Amino acid sequence: MRLTAPTSSHGVTERLFTLPFPTGDVPGVLWTPDGVAGPHPLILMGHGGGQHRRAPGIVAGARRFVTGGGFAVAAVDAPAHGDRPRDARHEGLLTELRQRMRATGDVSEVLAEFHTLLADQSVPEWRAVLDAVGALDHVGVGPVGYWGLSMGCALGMPFVAAEPRVRAAVLGLDGAETSAEAAARVTVPVEFLVQWDDERVPRAASLALFDRLASTEKTLHANPGRHVEVPSFEGDSALRFFTRHLR
Amino acid sequence: MRLTAPTSSHGVTERLFTLPFPTGDVPGVLWTPDGVAGPHPLILMGHGGGQHRRAPGIVAGARRFVTGGGFAVAAVDAPAHGDRPRDARHEGLLTELRQRMRATGDVSEVLAEFHTLLADQSVPEWRAVLDAVGALDHVGVGPVGYWGLSMGCALGMPFVAAEPRVRAAVLGLDGAETSAEAAARVTVPVEFLVQWDDERVPRAASLALFDRLASTEKTLHANPGRHVEVPSFEGDSALRFFTRHLR
Repeated sequence: MRLTAPTSSHGVTERLFTLPFPTGDVPGVLWTPDGVAGPHPLILMGHGGGQHRRAPGIVAGARRFVTGGGFAVAAVDAPAHGDRPRDARHEGLLTELRQRMRATGDVSEVLAEFHTLLADQSVPEWRAVLDAVGALDHVGVGPVGYWGLSMGCALGMPFVAAEPRVRAAVLGLDGAETSAEAAARVTVPVEFLVQWDDERVPRAASLALFDRLASTEKTLHANPGRHVEVPSFEGDSALRFFTRHLR
Repeated sequence: MRLTAPTSSHGVTERLFTLPFPTGDVPGVLWTPDGVAGPHPLILMGHGGGQHRRAPGIVAGARRFVTGGGFAVAAVDAPAHGDRPRDARHEGLLTELRQRMRATGDVSEVLAEFHTLLADQSVPEWRAVLDAVGALDHVGVGPVGYWGLSMGCALGMPFVAAEPRVRAAVLGLDGAETSAEAAARVTVPVEFLVQWDDERVPRAASLALFDRLASTEKTLHANPGRHVEVPSFEGDSALRFFTRHLR
């Protein structure tokens, strides 16, 4: 893994990294607390559809986890997102997605297919990121959490199901169509976010996905508002949730 | 209002009180932080069906609010509960409740009638408690919160709807049959608890009641388990919720 020199801002050290992977380089970013020796428990953050590793919501969440809980946080560009190339299958599904959006607005079937394609790539990539980042002195091999909403949930669910190093996850804004099969294999504590008036994910599909999680400890947090209107106090709640389970 | 002499234990001062009321004395209890001058923001706690003002869940919750947030906390025996007498209407409905429980297990209609009867008494009582407790030097007239689950929600919903001094409420374990009309008049922030496998309140009725709340800020917290199995971390969450809104 290649790491850039650290830069620091308001108590948070940031390093960009590139992880060589058989199917192409994975660009990522690592945030750690300034001047605090590791190891730190690690939170992996999966961004939403159309976003990238340094999207504003990811950076704000990462800073909160680092400064509020002393966590290390890593994010990567998902396949076909950020600085990563799209192949013919990506382009084909994205074209179909746009066509259906214009025609009927019902994109759930194509979106599920797109997310399944991306997850086939991203699950092994996340596992490699965990190997590489965990080998750094200032991170270390300790408890790991995963945070991801919307596409970050769709791609994260099979990763959390497959990776025993992940001990707790904040997921949500996603429905049963995409992630139900993986959810039934998730057994770690989960905080699951639902937007009560989500215009992209039907309420029943959200509730059904929460229902499918095999975790003994799982909490659904539902708030009024549309898909992107998750209230900021849920960020504080996620921090406390990870602190309770990883520290 | 008559108050007993204070007793103190582990940082919490307890005073029993009796509030004279036209329809009979209301026995209550007031908890405040030891040795901290008032005024303190006040949380009113409504107990569940068959319980009383010093039920273990009420005492534990009150201690957490007092020691964790510096709140004053008051609880009273609901009508027909604890040390309070039952009249012929109470006895009649309780007998019918027991008969239906044995016959069909479906008690929702009788329970709604019982709760409506009790709420007609308890709403003006809570308002009088608020007047009397707020007049005490070590409580004072400040922001007020209401906490009540199950019957404590059914009786609390119309109180929260009617009483402008209440600025935030933790409610739940209750369905739309009983409280929907009052919920539509509640506008303060609400944290609403649902037990995902509640054997007494159908899941759909719980979700419908949350849906009916007119509050701009409302959060549903759903956890696996039966009616009485609310996880203890929800107590911490309630403390943070009241701290955020009342302090």
